[in-house]
Amino acid sequence: MTYRLGIDLGGTSAKIGLVSERAKIITHTSVPTEGFPNAANVVDRIASGAFRMIGKKKIKSVGVGVAGDVDSKKGIVRVSPNLGWSQVRLGELFKKKFKTNVIIENDANAAAWGIYKTQVPSTIKNLIVMTLGTGVGGGIIIDGKLFSGATGSAGEVGHMVIDEKGPLCNCGQRGCLETYVGAPHLINRVKRDLVQGASSSLKQIDQNELTPKKISEAALRGDVYAQNIWKNVGYYLGLAVGDLIYLLNPQMVVFTGGIAQAKNLILLPLKEKLTQRPFRTPIQATKIKMADHAPDVGVIGASLL
Amino acid sequence: MTYRLGIDLGGTSAKIGLVSERAKIITHTSVPTEGFPNAANVVDRIASGAFRMIGKKKIKSVGVGVAGDVDSKKGIVRVSPNLGWSQVRLGELFKKKFKTNVIIENDANAAAWGIYKTQVPSTIKNLIVMTLGTGVGGGIIIDGKLFSGATGSAGEVGHMVIDEKGPLCNCGQRGCLETYVGAPHLINRVKRDLVQGASSSLKQIDQNELTPKKISEAALRGDVYAQNIWKNVGYYLGLAVGDLIYLLNPQMVVFTGGIAQAKNLILLPLKEKLTQRPFRTPIQATKIKMADHAPDVGVIGASLL
Repeated sequence: MTYRLGIDLGGTSAKIGLVSERAKIITHTSVPTEGFPNAANVVDRIASGAFRMIGKKKIKSVGVGVAGDVDSKKGIVRVSPNLGWSQVRLGELFKKKFKTNVIIENDANAAAWGIYKTQVPSTIKNLIVMTLGTGVGGGIIIDGKLFSGATGSAGEVGHMVIDEKGPLCNCGQRGCLETYVGAPHLINRVKRDLVQGASSSLKQIDQNELTPKKISEAALRGDVYAQNIWKNVGYYLGLAVGDLIYLLNPQMVVFTGGIAQAKNLILLPLKEKLTQRPFRTPIQATKIKMADHAPDVGVIGASLL
Repeated sequence: MTYRLGIDLGGTSAKIGLVSERAKIITHTSVPTEGFPNAANVVDRIASGAFRMIGKKKIKSVGVGVAGDVDSKKGIVRVSPNLGWSQVRLGELFKKKFKTNVIIENDANAAAWGIYKTQVPSTIKNLIVMTLGTGVGGGIIIDGKLFSGATGSAGEVGHMVIDEKGPLCNCGQRGCLETYVGAPHLINRVKRDLVQGASSSLKQIDQNELTPKKISEAALRGDVYAQNIWKNVGYYLGLAVGDLIYLLNPQMVVFTGGIAQAKNLILLPLKEKLTQRPFRTPIQATKIKMADHAPDVGVIGASLL
């Protein structure tokens, strides 16, 4: 048996998984990535965690999904705000440790690849995966291959401009999709609304413990305010997905990440919004679905790159 | 010598060209497409015009670019508002006449292919071509192939929503890109502004003879009002192109069509707008250019499909 190593490298921790030929996680671990002086130290820490986990098993390849702007051809992380890195030759650092093939990708691309390889019928070769979490990212699969563009930057759906006069985004622009559907934006909106007197059962929750999950639970209990928060998410996602379908005419759009756990609370208003698009052929041809809950899809996707 | 036949089939006329192996037009003609009872009659008329033009020369293939929603795999025009067609088996109709390979494509895709094959360095394999005319269309080339999506509908850049509260589009939506840069919208805007007292040398032109070309000429003479019309076009194109670059990270974006003849009047404000995008890598990697003036690029592109 040979195995692949998948690593999902984020700003607070790295998830590491040993993945079988059948794309199943055999064993996994996690190490912190915060507080290290530089990237080489982070790679040291990941490698020691991985070697302890692997034992004497043989590894065929290492795939790494990193939160940041990645040049996957050269294995370089051009910039990762979350990790505080710029121009890191991450591929070389991993290669020195593991002495095997190493592939570096953007983490949203790795997750998209994981969804494509494990959750999608084999007839689907063109799809868009949108990762809805703290940030909003995306991966595009074309003709069964990850499409990463001229500099590895393709699929940046979270910073499509929905409304130039919209809310301020972390990136510096106004009205990015992320400002309508990203978790911190949603939570801040709820806090502000409640202070301003919105009527909702969410008032009874400690405001520091507000999460998308709590907002979903309230909505499912019949809380109209919470339902409207999700309707709004579905509306703006539907607006963006309409543009994506017009541009890329995919067979499928799949949502993953924490926010996607709101499922039909988002999906129904999203589909409603899509019915307003006048060109019916590409809209009707696109299956829209929420990914199955799979917190390790980034690790599996990285391992299969 | 063998030749290919290229046909650019629009709502008022069909341009027909005999194209050499080196993608040069040997001879060309044009026939009307208006006022015929059905598609078969239009194809009859095109075929008789083409046969007269071709004489005894041998044709290797026929490529047709049609204004409308096209299923290129099946050679079917699903709907063409300009031609008044729906569910026309255009491939079969042409095949009966020409008894050779026939390829049917959307006209913006055919033009994009023509630009790609005749005006772009061979190192460019990923690009977006935007056709700016009465309508606004697009074609996407990925890995050196025309990308037409699941139902042949990809590249519909003209109906990306720029502002949901924007001007009403012919398609029924509000704020499509086309409402900011399409020729009829620009001309109506100028007429309205002049009635409302805008100060411009364009007042001296018969309002029924206003064209994008006249607006360009006024701008180049120093007419500030006309310059602002183009600045506005560049601004909104820049907004849309920023989203396209974030999504597709192309090597190049090329503009063609009548509106693109305004060249730097559009290009400078467009590039200025792009400098506002915070993720610099994909933006800086994208070459932005106006296509060389080539009114036959749709015919040539169709012939090379």
